[in-house]
Amino acid sequence: MDERAALALLADELEYAGDDAAVVDDLVVTTDMLHETTDFPAGTTRYTAGWRAVGASLSDVAAMGAEAVAAVAAYAAPEFDGEELLAFVRGARDVCDLVGAEYVGGDLDGHDEFTVTTTAIGRFEEQPVPRSGATPGDRLCVTGTLGRSAAALEYFALAQDGDEKEGKDGNNTERANELFQFEPRIDAGRALAPHATAMMDSSDGLARSLHQLGEASGCGFEVDASCVPIAESLREATETDDEALERATTFGEDFELVATIPEGMVEVVREAVPVPISVLGSVVPREDGITMDGEEMPDRGFTHGSG
Amino acid sequence: MDERAALALLADELEYAGDDAAVVDDLVVTTDMLHETTDFPAGTTRYTAGWRAVGASLSDVAAMGAEAVAAVAAYAAPEFDGEELLAFVRGARDVCDLVGAEYVGGDLDGHDEFTVTTTAIGRFEEQPVPRSGATPGDRLCVTGTLGRSAAALEYFALAQDGDEKEGKDGNNTERANELFQFEPRIDAGRALAPHATAMMDSSDGLARSLHQLGEASGCGFEVDASCVPIAESLREATETDDEALERATTFGEDFELVATIPEGMVEVVREAVPVPISVLGSVVPREDGITMDGEEMPDRGFTHGSG
Repeated sequence: MDERAALALLADELEYAGDDAAVVDDLVVTTDMLHETTDFPAGTTRYTAGWRAVGASLSDVAAMGAEAVAAVAAYAAPEFDGEELLAFVRGARDVCDLVGAEYVGGDLDGHDEFTVTTTAIGRFEEQPVPRSGATPGDRLCVTGTLGRSAAALEYFALAQDGDEKEGKDGNNTERANELFQFEPRIDAGRALAPHATAMMDSSDGLARSLHQLGEASGCGFEVDASCVPIAESLREATETDDEALERATTFGEDFELVATIPEGMVEVVREAVPVPISVLGSVVPREDGITMDGEEMPDRGFTHGSG
Repeated sequence: MDERAALALLADELEYAGDDAAVVDDLVVTTDMLHETTDFPAGTTRYTAGWRAVGASLSDVAAMGAEAVAAVAAYAAPEFDGEELLAFVRGARDVCDLVGAEYVGGDLDGHDEFTVTTTAIGRFEEQPVPRSGATPGDRLCVTGTLGRSAAALEYFALAQDGDEKEGKDGNNTERANELFQFEPRIDAGRALAPHATAMMDSSDGLARSLHQLGEASGCGFEVDASCVPIAESLREATETDDEALERATTFGEDFELVATIPEGMVEVVREAVPVPISVLGSVVPREDGITMDGEEMPDRGFTHGSG
């Protein structure tokens, strides 16, 4: 049984099976387990790992439009190297500081593989933003840029090969680590919350996010490829525009917010949200499917378990 | 570096390093990672694993005197067996139901070893009960009985040996699983909170709990061995009274509450707390040490990481 089948099985048991986060009273809670072999490419520093693991959970809080309150991490490793552990904690704390959450430590544990489970807690002022409210005519928006993590993987790979990207100087590992850190969009999520009809993060890739929003809302999307905000770092790390667009829309792991907002509210949202907002296209009826420049966008990207 | 050394290192970085749980605003948050090889003896059902893993985190909430709000779990296994996964979720949900918390699922993940990280969230009405307020003259109390988990391990071992305890019939594995489930002392913790000067759970064993409370409060304890509430199941699983007492005071994993309360409040607390309370002894000055029947109680028991 794969993760999707397992989630389907749990859907009868758990209200939030498959969602990024669960809502209890005025709180939102989200947890994720990450492993060295699958989630942290060779070259990822423990500082970046702490930042990224905790940041990913904070991104799930952002996707609900909530304030970030706190994060904890359970840290398991074959042995406790003092410097690595401190670096992890500092990365975790720095990403929390960036969004006004408190990093409160957690659990230490011996384990054969470096494994981290992070949990973040948020609090709503009003209501969580659902995935289910997108309505034909709404505009489709995304915060920031897409493709930083895809670019990071290129630089991690180059560093592993001992190679240098043609025309680039400097340290590939360092560049990859910088790109692998990101600002969870807590402030943007809170500013979007009063206006967004549906919202989630882009951690599974734009294409998969649209399929998930489309299924939850019973709608389709039309995307204008020229409006996809491709990260400059991804353009530099790829050979062609087509390759950059493909990675930007399917690679995921970027932790931007994908939201739908009523057409007349775009400028209001742009004023309120503290990061650039790109309007990628529109919500269309379900039967029109999910397309980019008129071509179907397949449901491709990362599958992260969540149940 | 072992877990204790790692915790000492983190003490400069994290306010709650080494504590069972952290406090943020009116919330308490606690997380624990458990592994099949170290935490779930052969014979532990997934239902029991779900109950116990989530129950352990709820016990940390109880130890702070807070109401239990919610729990999540990240569940990792080599493959997702539908029945196992459902059993885990039901065990997790049943222990939450018992204490009025909502079990909201979490994350599914492929991993070579069955590994679970649970996080529980509680909320205070007033203030968390610290570990640091025990004062000479206070009475030392414990909820329920000690030794159920130690007894469970005996029955798991018997089941592994294909043996039957002399004079006992029935299924050792089933008995062990029943003993391995427990009621987190949320209600007792809330009822103790207005009166207790210090409190923690007994998950590391009574002896270690007293050393931890003694260090935090700057006090000693004198314990009357005849007042230690040894679980009937442990008496049945051990050969001698001395052996039962030794296991009851050092084995741990029992998730009862160990609390100190002012001498005059014992009857008030007994009235208020919905489970039996045993008065084991008294808080004494630090220089008098930690003794049972006049003999030093060494700092022995489980060491669970937490940072």
